[in-house]
Amino acid sequence: MEVVQVLHMNKGNGDTSYAKNSTVQRKIISFGKTIIEEALLELSSNYDIDSMGIADLGCSMGPNTLSVISEIMDIVRATSGHLRRPVPEFRLFFNDLYSNDFNYLFMLLPAFYKMLKEEKGIGSQCFISGVPGSFYGRLLPSNSLHFVYSFSSLHWLSQVPVGLESYAVKHLNKGKVYISKSSPQSVVNAYSSQFQADFSQFIKSRSQELVPGGRMVLSFLGRKSIDPTTEDGCYQWELLAEALMSLVKEGLIEEEKVASFNAPYYAPCAEELKVEILKEGSFIINRLEAFEVDWDGGAVADTHTEQGKMMVGERVAKTIRAVVESMLESHFRMGQDTMDVLFIKFAEIVGNHLSKTRTKYINFVISLVRKG
Amino acid sequence: MEVVQVLHMNKGNGDTSYAKNSTVQRKIISFGKTIIEEALLELSSNYDIDSMGIADLGCSMGPNTLSVISEIMDIVRATSGHLRRPVPEFRLFFNDLYSNDFNYLFMLLPAFYKMLKEEKGIGSQCFISGVPGSFYGRLLPSNSLHFVYSFSSLHWLSQVPVGLESYAVKHLNKGKVYISKSSPQSVVNAYSSQFQADFSQFIKSRSQELVPGGRMVLSFLGRKSIDPTTEDGCYQWELLAEALMSLVKEGLIEEEKVASFNAPYYAPCAEELKVEILKEGSFIINRLEAFEVDWDGGAVADTHTEQGKMMVGERVAKTIRAVVESMLESHFRMGQDTMDVLFIKFAEIVGNHLSKTRTKYINFVISLVRKG
Repeated sequence: MEVVQVLHMNKGNGDTSYAKNSTVQRKIISFGKTIIEEALLELSSNYDIDSMGIADLGCSMGPNTLSVISEIMDIVRATSGHLRRPVPEFRLFFNDLYSNDFNYLFMLLPAFYKMLKEEKGIGSQCFISGVPGSFYGRLLPSNSLHFVYSFSSLHWLSQVPVGLESYAVKHLNKGKVYISKSSPQSVVNAYSSQFQADFSQFIKSRSQELVPGGRMVLSFLGRKSIDPTTEDGCYQWELLAEALMSLVKEGLIEEEKVASFNAPYYAPCAEELKVEILKEGSFIINRLEAFEVDWDGGAVADTHTEQGKMMVGERVAKTIRAVVESMLESHFRMGQDTMDVLFIKFAEIVGNHLSKTRTKYINFVISLVRKG
Repeated sequence: MEVVQVLHMNKGNGDTSYAKNSTVQRKIISFGKTIIEEALLELSSNYDIDSMGIADLGCSMGPNTLSVISEIMDIVRATSGHLRRPVPEFRLFFNDLYSNDFNYLFMLLPAFYKMLKEEKGIGSQCFISGVPGSFYGRLLPSNSLHFVYSFSSLHWLSQVPVGLESYAVKHLNKGKVYISKSSPQSVVNAYSSQFQADFSQFIKSRSQELVPGGRMVLSFLGRKSIDPTTEDGCYQWELLAEALMSLVKEGLIEEEKVASFNAPYYAPCAEELKVEILKEGSFIINRLEAFEVDWDGGAVADTHTEQGKMMVGERVAKTIRAVVESMLESHFRMGQDTMDVLFIKFAEIVGNHLSKTRTKYINFVISLVRKG
C-alpha cells in the first residue's frame, strides 16, 4: 500500500467526515496547548524574529487546523506586546499527504484572513501555503522555520513495515491487523524497525528546516509500557480486526484480505523516542509527557446501560472511521454498504469492550529545541 | 458575485473538465516559451542564485501546470551548466484562487517528484507549495521571488466592475454579458476602471515580492485596437450572450438573470498596460508582444462543411465551458441539463460565426524586469 498516496482523513463535512468527527483530536490538542505556549514564549524571548516560519505537519482539514494556528498567532502577538516588539510577519505552512483534502482547507481561508484582519489587526502580514508531501522527508528549505508542530500524525508510518507482505508473516499474524498478543516477534520487530527508520528521518529533516534555537512540539499516540502488546498501545486495532473477521464469517470480505492488511501505524514508548532523538543529536528534549485520553474524547456516557454502550461505541467507531476509511477502502475495495456494516459491528464490539474495561489511548507531547 | 470564491476552472478530468479542455491555453503557452527562456537566461547570467523562488500565478490544475514549470527548471539547469554553477534549489509556488482544484494538482506531484529525481537528478532540491488566494493582493513575503509567470489569468478581474449591478446600467446593457457595440460609455468606463485598479494592484504586489532584478512574464488575452468593442476583444462574450438569450426565449432562464450577469473579464489594449506599469514605476518593460490565437487553438478543420462547422463549434464551446461554467452555475443556478442545452446552442452559434469570420483572440506576452 502506498501510504503517501492513500492515507487521508475522510473528506468534506458529511456525517462520516473527519471535519465532523475529530473531537478526540481536539481533546489531544487541548493538552498540548500549554506546552506550545511555553515553547513559543521561550522562542520569542530568546530571539527577535521579523518573519516567523511556522509549520503544521499533518494538518488535515478540520476545524482544528485553523483554530490551533489562530491560538499560536495570539500567543506570538501577546508575547511581542509584552516585549514591546512589533508582531512578526507570519509564514504559515500547512502540510499533509498528497491526498489530504486541501480544497476543503483552502475554502476556509477567505473567512480566516478576514478574521485575522478584523479581529487581530493582522492584514497583509500573514502568508499561508499548503505543502503536500510526506514529513518523513524534506518539505521546506533549510533554516526556514522557527516553530513546528504536529498533532495526531506521527503514529502513522510512512509505509506498511517492510517484510509484512510475505506469506510466512501473513500466516503468523493471521486475523490481526497490527501488533497483538498473539503476534510473533518478527511482526513486532518489523513494526519497531519501521518506526525507528521513519521517526529518525522525521527528526533529521526537521533539524535541517528549523533555525538554531527553533522549537518543535509533537503530539501523537504511544504506549506506557515497553511491551508493545499492552492494551493502551494497540487495542483499537485488536477490536477492528475482530470486526473484520466477523465480516469474513458473513462472507462479506475474504479472510486472505484481512491476513494481508497491516495498519501502517505504530504506538512507540518513551524510550524508543528518546533513543532516536539522542541518536540524531540536533535536538534537546525540553519536555516529554504522556497522558491518557478516552477513546471517545471523554464525553460522559453511562456504559452500563445498553443505550449508553451503543452511544459510546458509535462515537468511537465514527472517530476511527474518519481516520482509517481511506486505507480500508484502498485495501479491501469494499463498497459503502460493507463499510457501514463493518463500522456498525465495530461500534458494537467497542461498546461492549468499554463497558467492561475503560481502555484509553496514551498520548505523548514532546517539546524539542533545535541546538544552535 | 464573489469572484475570489466562485471562479475556478472545471475540476477533475471528465469530459467537460479544464484538464481535458485546455488546448488553447497550451497553444498560448507555446508562444510564451521563448520569452520565458530569454528572461531566465538574463536572470541567471546576471545573478548567482542559491535558492530560486518561482511562482505560477493562476496555475489552475491541468497538465499544462506541471509541464511549464518542468521546462523552466530545464532552462535553469542548462544555464547553470553553461555558467559552471551548481543548479539552485527550487522553491516553487503554485497560486490560484481558493476554489481551484488544488487536490487534483497535488495528486500529480508524487509522479512529478519521481520524474524530477530520476530524469533530472533533482532530488531534495525542490520544494513545492500551493498558495491559495487572489493575485490582486500580496501572496508571498517580500523579496522572496526571482521569477513570476502567469498564463491566461490576468484577463479575469477581481470582481464584476463596481456599479454594474445598478438597475440603470443593467437596463442599458440588456442582453449582453460584457462590453458590446451597443454598450453605453458608463459600462465601458466601469470595466476599464476595474481593470486599472486590479492590474495596478497586481503590479504593486509583485514589485514587493520580487527581488531587485527579478523577472516576470505575463501572458493573457487583450485587444489590438483602443476601441474595447472590436471583435477580437469581446466577441466570444457576444455569442455567449446570444446563446443565453435563446435560452430566455425557450423559458429556461429568466431575462432578468441575463441582464444582471456581467463577466468579470477585461481584454485590455497595450496602451492601458503600459500606463499602469509606468505609473507604478518598479518595472522596466523588456518586451510587449501581441499575437493571434484561434478560438479552437488552431486545430485544422474545414468550417465550410456542416460537420466541420459543428466540430469547431463544439471544440470552442468545450474550452470556454471549462473556464466559465463555475461562474454561470453560481449566477444562474442552472442544472447540468440546462448547462448542456446552453453549450449545445453556443457551439452552434460559434460554428456558424467561424464559418463566416475567423475571429481570433489577441494574446499579449509581457516580459518585465524588477528595477533595483
